[in-house]
Amino acid sequence: MGQTSPTARTGPEAAFLPTARTTVRRHRERGRYDRELVYAILDEGFICHAACQVDGTVWMIPTAYARDGDRLLLHGAAANHVLKAAAAGAELTVTVTLIDGLVLARSTFHHSINYRSVVVFGPATPIEEAGEKADAMVRLVDHILPGRTADARGPNAAELASTRVVWLPLDEVSAKVRTGGPIDDDDDMDLPVWAGVLPLRPVAGPPQPDGAGAAGVAMPTYLSQPGRWKDGW
Amino acid sequence: MGQTSPTARTGPEAAFLPTARTTVRRHRERGRYDRELVYAILDEGFICHAACQVDGTVWMIPTAYARDGDRLLLHGAAANHVLKAAAAGAELTVTVTLIDGLVLARSTFHHSINYRSVVVFGPATPIEEAGEKADAMVRLVDHILPGRTADARGPNAAELASTRVVWLPLDEVSAKVRTGGPIDDDDDMDLPVWAGVLPLRPVAGPPQPDGAGAAGVAMPTYLSQPGRWKDGW
Repeated sequence: MGQTSPTARTGPEAAFLPTARTTVRRHRERGRYDRELVYAILDEGFICHAACQVDGTVWMIPTAYARDGDRLLLHGAAANHVLKAAAAGAELTVTVTLIDGLVLARSTFHHSINYRSVVVFGPATPIEEAGEKADAMVRLVDHILPGRTADARGPNAAELASTRVVWLPLDEVSAKVRTGGPIDDDDDMDLPVWAGVLPLRPVAGPPQPDGAGAAGVAMPTYLSQPGRWKDGW
Repeated sequence: MGQTSPTARTGPEAAFLPTARTTVRRHRERGRYDRELVYAILDEGFICHAACQVDGTVWMIPTAYARDGDRLLLHGAAANHVLKAAAAGAELTVTVTLIDGLVLARSTFHHSINYRSVVVFGPATPIEEAGEKADAMVRLVDHILPGRTADARGPNAAELASTRVVWLPLDEVSAKVRTGGPIDDDDDMDLPVWAGVLPLRPVAGPPQPDGAGAAGVAMPTYLSQPGRWKDGW
């Protein structure tokens, strides 16, 4: 495919080497290759879109993920089409996108969106060993809600068998980031148009207990106190 | 590719006919084909992930979209790789995903996510005519923030020329929806584990004016009053 190969790095602080596929071309100034930034984006998000090509069709699924060091863990049902193809050797393209705000310019054309996105290209490797798979499931759940797996019953053998977990190396990776206010044309600056940013972020509402099961179970602190999911601005 | 062709429908109430590609197989009960539901999901979201295959690589971008009747409008810079390939004939796979909450079960295995997603497969058609393209840009901006284009300066000829707009037919489409609380194993129901749903949604923070330009421009009502972007739970 002609892309250059990402070169080995020496430490977690090292930057990703852009390949022909991860070099940001459009809005070059938005391209980022530093590992710390990429990992911060991956650690803030929890849903990716993973795609691969099978028999001429591009299949794409939204799915949960977690970062495990320099690996990206994805999981899903064993029957899941994309993960199955990935486990069988299809290359994955994985994108994580965080939407930070609407950029409202004085002209329709300069409207934009503040976002942070990461794209990862790579082969996926299935995790088959039960202990390693259980660790990955714990990591996935705790990534989304830290502390949760200390409460919940861990996976048993049958549950592990029906779950597919794959990992991608975080090698061929880049980020794209837009921040800040609108960039208007000079000629538009005197227009009487409100311009700025409407910040957006995912916010949690009040936890909704299912009202079933054991009586008197207290709401855990990771739900009752502001944490990963803030309860307002 | 072997998929059956979606059949013409007679009105907006007609369901999508599932093809081999849009038939939901895993968690069949989550598959939805009614047009009203699909359109409601598309109208609530505004960022999609669009992917296509070029020279063996699956390229994917997050990008803004809007629905225009039975068409999905996507736009981006003329140089954008995915939209360029689409305009040149590559089939697109487009996914819109809304995350509604974390489903916290009594076992790690039964943790899930409440979501509503739509996938669209289809050829893209470029919109070239200036007036039609301007209409599409207005629709895209007003979809994200209703009322906005009544304020902002509309696109001029040069701006239209540097914007690529394509549309996909909403024909080969399906949705997948998970709602409700956790579904635990009977044996787990007496575990002293809090179980339920942590609802999530994108929420707007206080609008941030850029502080430049004309003085005394009031904040428009579509920003000062709760609307498409609610300001809390």
